[in-house]
Amino acid sequence: MSNSLKIVVVGGGAAGMAAAASARRVNPSAEIIVLEASRHVSYGSCGIPYYLGGLVEDVSRLVTYTPEEFKRSRRVEVQINSYVKSVNAKSKTLVYVSGKGEEKEMGFDVLILATGAKPLVPKMEGLGLKGIHTVRFLEGAVRLKDDLTHSKRVTIIGAGYIGLELAENLRRIGKEVTILELLPRPMPNVDPELSAVISRELTINGVKLELNKRVIGFKGSERVEKVVTEDAEYETDLVVIAVGVRPNVSLARQAGVELGESGAIKTNSRMETSVKGIFAAGDNCEAQHAVLNKPVYIPLAQTANKMGYVAGANAAGGNEEFPGVVGSAITRVFNLEVGRTGLGEEEAEKHGFETKSVFIKARSRAGYFPGGGDIWVKLIVEKSSGRVIGGQMVGYEGVWSRIVALSLAIMNRLTVKQIVFSDIPYAPPFSPVWDPLITAARVALRQ
Amino acid sequence: MSNSLKIVVVGGGAAGMAAAASARRVNPSAEIIVLEASRHVSYGSCGIPYYLGGLVEDVSRLVTYTPEEFKRSRRVEVQINSYVKSVNAKSKTLVYVSGKGEEKEMGFDVLILATGAKPLVPKMEGLGLKGIHTVRFLEGAVRLKDDLTHSKRVTIIGAGYIGLELAENLRRIGKEVTILELLPRPMPNVDPELSAVISRELTINGVKLELNKRVIGFKGSERVEKVVTEDAEYETDLVVIAVGVRPNVSLARQAGVELGESGAIKTNSRMETSVKGIFAAGDNCEAQHAVLNKPVYIPLAQTANKMGYVAGANAAGGNEEFPGVVGSAITRVFNLEVGRTGLGEEEAEKHGFETKSVFIKARSRAGYFPGGGDIWVKLIVEKSSGRVIGGQMVGYEGVWSRIVALSLAIMNRLTVKQIVFSDIPYAPPFSPVWDPLITAARVALRQ
Repeated sequence: MSNSLKIVVVGGGAAGMAAAASARRVNPSAEIIVLEASRHVSYGSCGIPYYLGGLVEDVSRLVTYTPEEFKRSRRVEVQINSYVKSVNAKSKTLVYVSGKGEEKEMGFDVLILATGAKPLVPKMEGLGLKGIHTVRFLEGAVRLKDDLTHSKRVTIIGAGYIGLELAENLRRIGKEVTILELLPRPMPNVDPELSAVISRELTINGVKLELNKRVIGFKGSERVEKVVTEDAEYETDLVVIAVGVRPNVSLARQAGVELGESGAIKTNSRMETSVKGIFAAGDNCEAQHAVLNKPVYIPLAQTANKMGYVAGANAAGGNEEFPGVVGSAITRVFNLEVGRTGLGEEEAEKHGFETKSVFIKARSRAGYFPGGGDIWVKLIVEKSSGRVIGGQMVGYEGVWSRIVALSLAIMNRLTVKQIVFSDIPYAPPFSPVWDPLITAARVALRQ
Repeated sequence: MSNSLKIVVVGGGAAGMAAAASARRVNPSAEIIVLEASRHVSYGSCGIPYYLGGLVEDVSRLVTYTPEEFKRSRRVEVQINSYVKSVNAKSKTLVYVSGKGEEKEMGFDVLILATGAKPLVPKMEGLGLKGIHTVRFLEGAVRLKDDLTHSKRVTIIGAGYIGLELAENLRRIGKEVTILELLPRPMPNVDPELSAVISRELTINGVKLELNKRVIGFKGSERVEKVVTEDAEYETDLVVIAVGVRPNVSLARQAGVELGESGAIKTNSRMETSVKGIFAAGDNCEAQHAVLNKPVYIPLAQTANKMGYVAGANAAGGNEEFPGVVGSAITRVFNLEVGRTGLGEEEAEKHGFETKSVFIKARSRAGYFPGGGDIWVKLIVEKSSGRVIGGQMVGYEGVWSRIVALSLAIMNRLTVKQIVFSDIPYAPPFSPVWDPLITAARVALRQ
């Protein structure tokens, strides 16, 4: 193997494993090694809320491949419990700590940093108390599930998508759920008209939603008993902090890799960092936003997979490009689907777009057809060009479908007129003959 | 009113009513009259199978507007039971027969032909027997539903989408259903790999599917008792003929309007016919196929609505264009969703495209997430450009969604690479992290 290309991937999450698999596809002879700090690789952390809520029974179901399976099917060496401490880009070596606490050195020809993100935990008093959790890694999820068995009152800090997915799942297993959110509305990555529908859904389902609450600390003797905000205290048995993530870039920084304004790693479209021979992929990276034409930090699983696919291919001698993102995201909040893509209205205006927007309520299926539900559609359109630059929806059916379509439309710079005249298929079990998306586009056209 | 523009619409179906509404929006002062031969306007004939199967309880639920409601909300005069016999394009007059049998003359400035389509009924012996139906109009649907109450064995002739929707709905109300199809597979507008999945679904649900059967006639004393094919006879209590439709163009022909090769009315993108002052819209028209760059006859409800929208706007002095279709269609066959867009593989090759294709089986949601189902995806790609020119899917969830996305992709000439790197949103309740669509595109990319 001494003559073959040696590719080392740091991190065995979505991006890292996608990179390793992609590298193998491009280069059958390369030596490919994944170093993962934890005990698990290749797992779907997006499934953790559903594991906590019992929809996914065993945590092992979230694991796509064990290290052994991956090794067998892809001929990739996967070393778990291997924490990479430092990288020397010049000598092309790294130092890692193995499971037994030994420091070891390893050489590489190409390095891929797929170190992911970690939960953001703001400075708050009493963080050391027991019963305060974050949700990101499998080990923590198992500990949290166990801790939930003897906790009735749960406080979730943060009403972003993780917070809301947690609320749904913890209600499913009978917990009393309170969400404390700093901002005046839940799901701040959708516009206020939609937040109102989400607030109602949370209330209907017995979640106590407390807005404009800044958490300053926790009280308790050994275990958390109260969450303290600027103006109130909330009794609780357990806390989950879900206020977002930040890129895990300590190794990148140590290696001299340039970071972007967001604090995440800056790469080009080939996923190359500023340091020759070092690629990066996943939740530690910025991505180019195709509407804004500038890098953004929107860490999501699918983006991580695609970045890994590109980084791995290029590291192995291929030639792929990651064209970027348009900020598409979807979640389910109880019976409500919530999706968005492109820019929000305020976001668009902040970035200098002159916009018009429409917000309509419609039905997801033909009116006479059983099933279906209300769906609310917001479109944000660039005034001068008629191009759709943002789309957001909440509804009881069919949001994902239509956000998928809008994602394609926005990425490919389609106008509202092109959406009105798109040939999307119709049958009564699926949509009304004038689909909500088309109707919204027609309204926008008339403005 | 004598100074205002007078627009007469012949036909009060989807296209005619969309045209009238659109004309009114563009021109608040025009006189707009719809002449409809039957008693009903503005109804969803696509819902008829579900009315027969009891999912839609009352036939009136299929009617979006009564003539009175339409008149009130849109200030459009709607005359039912008014059959237009002839048009004189030079003198801009038409002759129609009113409900009472009187012949009347009416002048117009602009005429919109929205005469729709009628069921295709090939010459067969014994067609005059009782118990032989077609499915297209509300009156016929009510008669058929009544006739079904004392019929146990139903024979459907034709395994196209209407035949299959009927099969599902007649099984729902406990009938013994036999389908006789001329071709060697059901749903001939999807490729053979997909037909196999559909055949299985029909069998699982107790439908007897007889392929390669040419029906030559019917036997019975007063009422149909047997369907006769070239090589067999089938005992039956009732027959539905569902072998397609043909454009209703007798009036267009009489008026001197040019027809296309398909036999349907030829229009330009403004929905103008060859005769000045006469527009056409709906199931009596050809549409431009955006992949083939030639006119095709694919009569579908959504296309009809859009053609009506364009014809009405232009008739009233506006300026809209109908950019055409890509052959998108969707249906549900029991628990299976069946969708297609663009060209089929054979179709593409027949038209001179050099293609490659992929056919994959995947899951509609993340593997660990409950629910979801199998989904089969076929992509047809133009070899030289990598452009996707066709997509077909069958599956137990999420077909409509992905065909919507593919419709946009095909209409806008996206390549498989652009689909791989589209930023479609992901969450476990909706899709796997590598969506079946993306996976199929990735496989195509590697070929």
